[in-house]
Amino acid sequence: MDLFKRAAKTHSKAKGKLEVRPKIRVRNASDLSDVYGLGVATVCKDISKHKKKVFDYTLKQNTVAVIGDGSSVFGLGNVGAAAAIPFLEGKCMLFKEMADVNAFPLAIDSQDTEKLIEHIKSVAPIFGGICLEGVEPPKSFILEKNLQDLGIPIVHGKSTGTSIVVVAAMINSAKSIGKKLEDMRVVINGGGSAGLGMAYFLANYHKMNKKLKPIKEILVLDKKGLLYEGRADMGEFKTAIAEITNPKKLMGGVAAAMIGADAFIGVSSGNVISPLMIKSMADKPIIFTLSIPDLAISPESAKSAGASVIATSSSDYPNQISDVLAFPGLFKGALDANASEINLEMKLAAAKALADYIKKPTRNRVIPTVLDKIVTKKISAAVKKAAVESKAVRK
Amino acid sequence: MDLFKRAAKTHSKAKGKLEVRPKIRVRNASDLSDVYGLGVATVCKDISKHKKKVFDYTLKQNTVAVIGDGSSVFGLGNVGAAAAIPFLEGKCMLFKEMADVNAFPLAIDSQDTEKLIEHIKSVAPIFGGICLEGVEPPKSFILEKNLQDLGIPIVHGKSTGTSIVVVAAMINSAKSIGKKLEDMRVVINGGGSAGLGMAYFLANYHKMNKKLKPIKEILVLDKKGLLYEGRADMGEFKTAIAEITNPKKLMGGVAAAMIGADAFIGVSSGNVISPLMIKSMADKPIIFTLSIPDLAISPESAKSAGASVIATSSSDYPNQISDVLAFPGLFKGALDANASEINLEMKLAAAKALADYIKKPTRNRVIPTVLDKIVTKKISAAVKKAAVESKAVRK
Repeated sequence: MDLFKRAAKTHSKAKGKLEVRPKIRVRNASDLSDVYGLGVATVCKDISKHKKKVFDYTLKQNTVAVIGDGSSVFGLGNVGAAAAIPFLEGKCMLFKEMADVNAFPLAIDSQDTEKLIEHIKSVAPIFGGICLEGVEPPKSFILEKNLQDLGIPIVHGKSTGTSIVVVAAMINSAKSIGKKLEDMRVVINGGGSAGLGMAYFLANYHKMNKKLKPIKEILVLDKKGLLYEGRADMGEFKTAIAEITNPKKLMGGVAAAMIGADAFIGVSSGNVISPLMIKSMADKPIIFTLSIPDLAISPESAKSAGASVIATSSSDYPNQISDVLAFPGLFKGALDANASEINLEMKLAAAKALADYIKKPTRNRVIPTVLDKIVTKKISAAVKKAAVESKAVRK
Repeated sequence: MDLFKRAAKTHSKAKGKLEVRPKIRVRNASDLSDVYGLGVATVCKDISKHKKKVFDYTLKQNTVAVIGDGSSVFGLGNVGAAAAIPFLEGKCMLFKEMADVNAFPLAIDSQDTEKLIEHIKSVAPIFGGICLEGVEPPKSFILEKNLQDLGIPIVHGKSTGTSIVVVAAMINSAKSIGKKLEDMRVVINGGGSAGLGMAYFLANYHKMNKKLKPIKEILVLDKKGLLYEGRADMGEFKTAIAEITNPKKLMGGVAAAMIGADAFIGVSSGNVISPLMIKSMADKPIIFTLSIPDLAISPESAKSAGASVIATSSSDYPNQISDVLAFPGLFKGALDANASEINLEMKLAAAKALADYIKKPTRNRVIPTVLDKIVTKKISAAVKKAAVESKAVRK
């Protein structure tokens, strides 16, 4: 059966992939008073007097909103709020399945940045965390930045999750072929949420351990070529990335950038990389081909061109890079710690826990398989610890 | 154990009264593609092409938002969004428990009417219906009125639900003592959402059956006395009620209004009615004492003053008037019918089904006990039928 037929059948049959269930029963008048009568009124009153108790008495303590405006949904572009719902619901399922975190999908019918900020703020009281999803850049970054004062963890899910997994996979890829990241040149092709997110994260990866040194050189390309300090038309967020990458202020396209590079990460369009480009790279090249729905280059072509470690966004090959490995544990750890944000320390702790999970990385196993719940547990424990140590905890 | 201790314990132990669960499992890569990979993307794409399919593929088909701003929570007044959550969660539990409808609580952190309208519109894509809850009048009425163009059923839950139950109970109360509503004078003390809601509904009750005639006289009082056409400072919604009630344009307070009345409904403050007032009423007076947390008069005092039928908001006495009897079936019927609204015909059908459920009403049984799921089924079937017949169905 083809992809659409199977997925359409699954969705039509399920009639919604989520349900909202009571955790306690209402069997009699006394139960009813507790949850919907004079009893619950006393609990409401207690929260009105002691604001923090909302975390003790309500689902806020363990519930995340998965919020999007449908402006950039999974390789489909801007399909709008309603069409984003199946994807948002899927993410919510994985929150519960992998980390026992409740998540509810909110597809917001507004694509104006200022209004989105207002709408998201307005629904915040019921949630203990917010995972932005399917929002196009730079709106995704603007939202994330402008919502940090809500006192609950807020990140752009896909780009944060993918960045964490990419850093972990890169650490283990280098290990598997005996290289060190401090000696490596890494090229990222893609100026969207994912590309910029992982560039920032790779540029900070060494902060996870005092003994580490920064990656030697990170180059990022958008559709117009390399990002470099001083390039026109980059906007706030690309400019910020240009400032912390490309130290030599190189200009040019992806073919030139790849010459002599140790690793290439493709998160832009499909089929943009040729075998010749891989052959121009340094010894034992690392190729992460992650664009959706079509890969930057097929793993078969990459391999015959000499790629040493290959990771993809697909489950059909070894080393699947999926944000499912990261986001459930990231939020679970933050909620468990009563965190007021998800800071860099917590994200780095997640990446380190994920990388460390593979004791002896090989070229065909730089990252665990998705749906491994032990991974989620390791990440959440590490994130919780990092939240406490970095004082990102609610007072 | 006192009310607060018990309810606080229930809430602290439950750590949230709701959970969001996947309805299908994600066991392997193929499942993952269906719900969060290339498979789900094809479903998103299909919705972007055929807007109506969002009802087939997503939880929208069977999910209601319970939305409030915390401006008027269950007799507590304006406690704000966070303190409203336990109450909103309780309502959501009952949606699932009684009618297998998913409901999610949204406490909105804004009390400005115009902004609330915008915020509620922005979250509408994911919901098949909206139940406003704990919003103070006249904002509750303004919201209900201004959100009717969303194409999904929207009502103010407590006032609509309570109105349906009150009409059903009044029909059966009259029957139990051999009176006819067309001969009766009914006094409603309370100018809030509940009082105005049931006044409108009682004034239209006879439309449920062509053979019925209107109630002879309905009088409504707010804190300043009787509503009458031409009274100053009433605002849009009280004026509308004044126009369809109080045909003689009577002025005065509650004591005067009750003289010779057949039925009294107290939805204002507690302890405002004296035994003498009941003694001034017509033969076999009907007393609905519904104010929260204190009743307008205790059932014991009402009884010794000569009340014939007594209904209360409390489960400690016979004839408990609770909106739990009505709202789950009302929304379930609307969702099952693919209704685009909840119109008067559907509300009247709910009231009729509820009244008819008691085959032979007696003074101690004018209404079924709450938590009777058969009642919910009868109501939802009647509402679904009324939606189809009144053409309130989505095209």
